[in-house]
Amino acid sequence: MRVVVPFAAETPKTRLESVLSPAERSAFARAMLADVLRAIVRAGHEPAVVSTAPLDLAALETPGEVAAAASLTVDDRPLTEAVNARLPTDDGADPVAVVMADLALATPDALEALTTAAADVAIAPGRGGGTNALVVDHPAFRVDYHGLSYLDHRGIAREIGATLETVDSFRLGSDIDEPADLVEVLVHGRESDRAPAVLREFGFELERRDGRVAAVRDGGPTA
Amino acid sequence: MRVVVPFAAETPKTRLESVLSPAERSAFARAMLADVLRAIVRAGHEPAVVSTAPLDLAALETPGEVAAAASLTVDDRPLTEAVNARLPTDDGADPVAVVMADLALATPDALEALTTAAADVAIAPGRGGGTNALVVDHPAFRVDYHGLSYLDHRGIAREIGATLETVDSFRLGSDIDEPADLVEVLVHGRESDRAPAVLREFGFELERRDGRVAAVRDGGPTA
Repeated sequence: MRVVVPFAAETPKTRLESVLSPAERSAFARAMLADVLRAIVRAGHEPAVVSTAPLDLAALETPGEVAAAASLTVDDRPLTEAVNARLPTDDGADPVAVVMADLALATPDALEALTTAAADVAIAPGRGGGTNALVVDHPAFRVDYHGLSYLDHRGIAREIGATLETVDSFRLGSDIDEPADLVEVLVHGRESDRAPAVLREFGFELERRDGRVAAVRDGGPTA
Repeated sequence: MRVVVPFAAETPKTRLESVLSPAERSAFARAMLADVLRAIVRAGHEPAVVSTAPLDLAALETPGEVAAAASLTVDDRPLTEAVNARLPTDDGADPVAVVMADLALATPDALEALTTAAADVAIAPGRGGGTNALVVDHPAFRVDYHGLSYLDHRGIAREIGATLETVDSFRLGSDIDEPADLVEVLVHGRESDRAPAVLREFGFELERRDGRVAAVRDGGPTA
């Protein structure tokens, strides 16, 4: 299945600005993208990165088969428009998946639960009513990522008579947006993942305090 | 399967104190408990509520078959001790599940993924390295809920030679602890659920602002 991966290449992860410099945010965003692309390829699919600016996929340090399977298109339109331009428009067209580039915990198994859903539209929601990943197998469905997109997408599916399935996945539900999310990368990232390795290179580690867990850097609290 | 549901009856949900009064926190905690018990019963299991203080299960306003299937024990020991006292101790003993009372999004399907796991220990992690639900089918496994319990439980399983499976569920991964979590109850709660109904009675509703979604009350921002 073709899996569109939108990527904001120029100012990625601004909500992490309290804990990461611009250069670090850029490196971390690319590390998460690399992990997402690898999970997509290992699930047997073809990632199509749609980036707001030119991007060197070879510099992502992904395994060779990932770089070979991934394609890149530059499209500087807003997210909703760029995605809608790539959804199926004809009856009988192949389904298209859309997976956000900051789903650092994505695994082939979690993606498989999404891509094997039988409904016309399958959505893996994120926290706060977001749409972290979806598969569209209906010619009339279009996305709208503003605001409460999960409920909006349910409503759009209902309007066009498309069946909808919600995919229940902690891994796909965990988009890495805010400092508190870094804990998830350090807890659930695997040995071979780039994103937790990059955070550790930056000096982040897990720390237990007051019965909770934080991602701290060089001894100071950050998340 | 026997499903232990620990419940802090006296001072529930203190981390919601900025948005709910003590009486409201108590009512909301009981509504979430009612939803969790119903999901457990509808998944075909027997909930065993272990409460820190006496509790009137009949007052939870659950359907009759839920009240009939649920049992109550008062145990005022700390969570870890109270749970460990109820885990299997003999080879061949029946497995025991432990499901937190604030998993307001739990559904029979999500619980089924947990209770049908084949490993000696199956864990549904929560955000921040917590253990939101688990099934224990090994006589030597004991819990430790302090701090990074998900990683600790993995370590404990490794030490005793127990196989471990992580259950990937957004619904079981969403414990409702903090004001921001109320959004999840309003977005993902279903018609027949008590917890979203109670929040709406309190005046909460979803509001879109600045591209994000908040649970607001009587027009004011709360989460």
